[in-house]
Amino acid sequence: MLIGDADVRPPGADEAHAVDPVSGERLEPGYPQGGAAEVERAAELAHAAFDTYRATAPEARARFLESIAANIDALGAALVERVMAETGLPEQRVLGERARTTGQLRLFAAVVRAGGWLGVRVDPADPGRTPLPRPDLRQRKIPLGPVAVFAASNFPLAFSVAGGDTASALAAGAPVVVKAHNAHPGTSELVGRAVRAAVREHGLPEGTFSLLFGPGPGLGTALVQDPRIAAVGFTGSRSGGLALAAAAAARPVPIPVYAEMSSVNPVVLLPGALAERGPALGAAYVASLTTGAGQLCTSPGLVFAVGDADGFLAAAADAVAAAPAAPMLTDGIRRAYDEGAARLAGRPGVTELATGARDAAIASCGQARLYVTDGATFRSDESLQAEVFGATSLVVRVRDLAELHAILGTLEGQLTATVHAAESDHPAARQLLPRLEVLAGRVLFGGWPTGVEVGHAVVHGGPFPATSAPATTSVGTLAIERFLRPVSYQDVPEALLPAELRDGNPAGVPRLVDGVQETGGR
Amino acid sequence: MLIGDADVRPPGADEAHAVDPVSGERLEPGYPQGGAAEVERAAELAHAAFDTYRATAPEARARFLESIAANIDALGAALVERVMAETGLPEQRVLGERARTTGQLRLFAAVVRAGGWLGVRVDPADPGRTPLPRPDLRQRKIPLGPVAVFAASNFPLAFSVAGGDTASALAAGAPVVVKAHNAHPGTSELVGRAVRAAVREHGLPEGTFSLLFGPGPGLGTALVQDPRIAAVGFTGSRSGGLALAAAAAARPVPIPVYAEMSSVNPVVLLPGALAERGPALGAAYVASLTTGAGQLCTSPGLVFAVGDADGFLAAAADAVAAAPAAPMLTDGIRRAYDEGAARLAGRPGVTELATGARDAAIASCGQARLYVTDGATFRSDESLQAEVFGATSLVVRVRDLAELHAILGTLEGQLTATVHAAESDHPAARQLLPRLEVLAGRVLFGGWPTGVEVGHAVVHGGPFPATSAPATTSVGTLAIERFLRPVSYQDVPEALLPAELRDGNPAGVPRLVDGVQETGGR
Repeated sequence: MLIGDADVRPPGADEAHAVDPVSGERLEPGYPQGGAAEVERAAELAHAAFDTYRATAPEARARFLESIAANIDALGAALVERVMAETGLPEQRVLGERARTTGQLRLFAAVVRAGGWLGVRVDPADPGRTPLPRPDLRQRKIPLGPVAVFAASNFPLAFSVAGGDTASALAAGAPVVVKAHNAHPGTSELVGRAVRAAVREHGLPEGTFSLLFGPGPGLGTALVQDPRIAAVGFTGSRSGGLALAAAAAARPVPIPVYAEMSSVNPVVLLPGALAERGPALGAAYVASLTTGAGQLCTSPGLVFAVGDADGFLAAAADAVAAAPAAPMLTDGIRRAYDEGAARLAGRPGVTELATGARDAAIASCGQARLYVTDGATFRSDESLQAEVFGATSLVVRVRDLAELHAILGTLEGQLTATVHAAESDHPAARQLLPRLEVLAGRVLFGGWPTGVEVGHAVVHGGPFPATSAPATTSVGTLAIERFLRPVSYQDVPEALLPAELRDGNPAGVPRLVDGVQETGGR
Repeated sequence: MLIGDADVRPPGADEAHAVDPVSGERLEPGYPQGGAAEVERAAELAHAAFDTYRATAPEARARFLESIAANIDALGAALVERVMAETGLPEQRVLGERARTTGQLRLFAAVVRAGGWLGVRVDPADPGRTPLPRPDLRQRKIPLGPVAVFAASNFPLAFSVAGGDTASALAAGAPVVVKAHNAHPGTSELVGRAVRAAVREHGLPEGTFSLLFGPGPGLGTALVQDPRIAAVGFTGSRSGGLALAAAAAARPVPIPVYAEMSSVNPVVLLPGALAERGPALGAAYVASLTTGAGQLCTSPGLVFAVGDADGFLAAAADAVAAAPAAPMLTDGIRRAYDEGAARLAGRPGVTELATGARDAAIASCGQARLYVTDGATFRSDESLQAEVFGATSLVVRVRDLAELHAILGTLEGQLTATVHAAESDHPAARQLLPRLEVLAGRVLFGGWPTGVEVGHAVVHGGPFPATSAPATTSVGTLAIERFLRPVSYQDVPEALLPAELRDGNPAGVPRLVDGVQETGGR
């Protein structure tokens, strides 16, 4: 474990090993499993680092984020090989995810420099106002405090030790304590050392970053309950997210948990689109479904086909039958996947349409699966909404738009909702849009939900149970807002104000002055 | 009760009467106490109104808010008299609060027109990007859904039926169901009818606004638990706010509760300020403390005097002794106040310094009270931090700055924190600022915490337990953000996009385009 400056291996601690999901072999070394003592130390250091780290100037903080990115790049092939061994993900995906991770860090560096995240507002004084003079009020955002980040299994880089939660928390000025995912401890250590090296290069307090290994119910719960932790970022299962949210709500001082949990990402195929390009849609659907062996939060797990879906289904079935076997991240995930698919297959009115290849040479082998049902069955069986994490999807043959609207009214909150519409479907699509925007955080036309852009306008979030905090996103620059809160300064002497609040805007940040937006000259 | 278009008085319902706190007399008429059936009907109407109301154009919504303000003004003396009879507040305060309330509605109308609340972000497509083209992504905020507002006892207009929660929710595009406070039902009815008249004038769906009367544990809990309610605004006691938050968290789909609960609003008097103007500070302190009989969330309940506080304390004691008796809002509040003051007086090491006048002619009579203790006692007795809602305050004689910092580290979250500093105190004040900004939502220099500006840069919020949602404010234009969430639109055809997201910014709203802030020409 990397606790501030120290490498920590508690004597006698249990060890956990990663397992190569292709060969099934245990990977060395073993990683010690920490507990309350390690949480205590990491939280104490993070608390001690908070005031110094949050006071860093934007330029210094931006360079620190860029150094983390450079240090990750400098790990080179050693990192890529370790990720592949621990996750079974193919090299191209790992290279892409590394670029996404370092790009994310560099994007947050740009955000920190631009300063919009400070949310500066200035209401000038009016000493002549009657009956009472108006005071001088200035507002900015400050970080909540040290943040606990729970790494995800399925993005060993981009949603892990130096992933989006860590990047946005560090950008906000919050020290970070990461709980690594036991599926990829070696990857976590390599990236953790890259972050720590950047902390040292920039002379930041050691508690700015720590990396812990340990079991979720023990070390993870202790981390959420520590009074010095002010917020939690999590990507994972619904049960895991809800457990953390409950632990956070039960604290003497409750804290926010930003948990991205589960989503089946409904896709609506309107009649014109099905008629115009049904077979092409079928092939593209399965390409999205089988990406990363379906182990993506935005995998299209549910399709509503309105109208003649035969061409679409035939092409999708062919594509699933031709889909190669792929390793799943861990054998536990593989087992849960097989069980989930079997549960779905066993529901009355659900038919298996196709299955992908198996490969006996892959220890934790994932096999694509396609199921079909009709609208009446779907409406009568709530369990058909449950996420099966992996490359399994259910197509619902929907009679007409009225049945589609009735079904949409029963759906849980989602990360994404997608529409495929021909020009002739636009009147129907116009009716759909208000339903989909209340259902999901991202509404797509003509594409597939996998592939989440990292930018300013993206939302990777959505109504419960897609997330525990529907007003937020865990991807993109808006993610920084999760770790900030506004503070108002009334009649504070100019000399004591932070630069971004001073007269004349010396920091050059966007400001809302007396209700009017100013760009800050950038 | 005003449930959409209907005046509802369930046959056989219990009735509650307001009581004039000066005369102690019961005021007519009685107001029916509703329950689950009324919640069901109001929530159903709000749900039915949601899509239509949230689709109103900014100009139409702004005019609706302005009509509510005009209708409240048009109630004239009848409203002022009823407020005075139900609350015992003096006429000047009621007139001021009415102006604050209508000003708030008009300010939110301006906010709706300016459009910054939409949070528009545009990341243009890049079809030539490799390895994958960049999609077109546009983001805006939409309302969460119908909002339940719990009115406060102590601001019968500004934090009640058409107060800040209602104004900001309606501005966000959310229908509102208000639970009136039983301390001022007649005021609530008058204002409720003013809102409903505006709903009708503008041809809005009847469910845009409903007003319910009933008990908190019954009707209030049912309202928070209704699946069609998407968020809750509350101003009141800590126990009340925590009960609503627990009920909201226990729902199958949890929702946010924005509860503004309790605060003692610490004031720090630094040695130079005490030496320079101790007696003047003492008088100003008591003027702030006795405003509204101390029944303000921002009343200065706790003062830390560092250095020679004799002149300050003598002046404060004189002012308290001279403070006239004042009616408290209800006899329940008066009783709780007397009990709280008695508890404080009974703590070891706490001395009563002065008490204000009593008046046997006032049925629910509040009496100002001033207590003093020392830093060591304060640090050893956590109960001295508890809010006594009313004009009671505790002055802590603090030895030095080191003791002050130690004490500040033990304080709960607050709405405000205030510093009085002479020029010679500035080095100490500079050290204090980082402590105070993590403690409170608003940091003041040289003033007193009562009197909360309604503007853009104000924060009326703060860390738990001051509020249940520290990243928000319940006063000022930022309050609108509590009821919004971002949605991202990916590759949605131009013709289907809302105006604020279309090419060329036809709505003229501020936008973040590819990370660069644009003002929208306003």
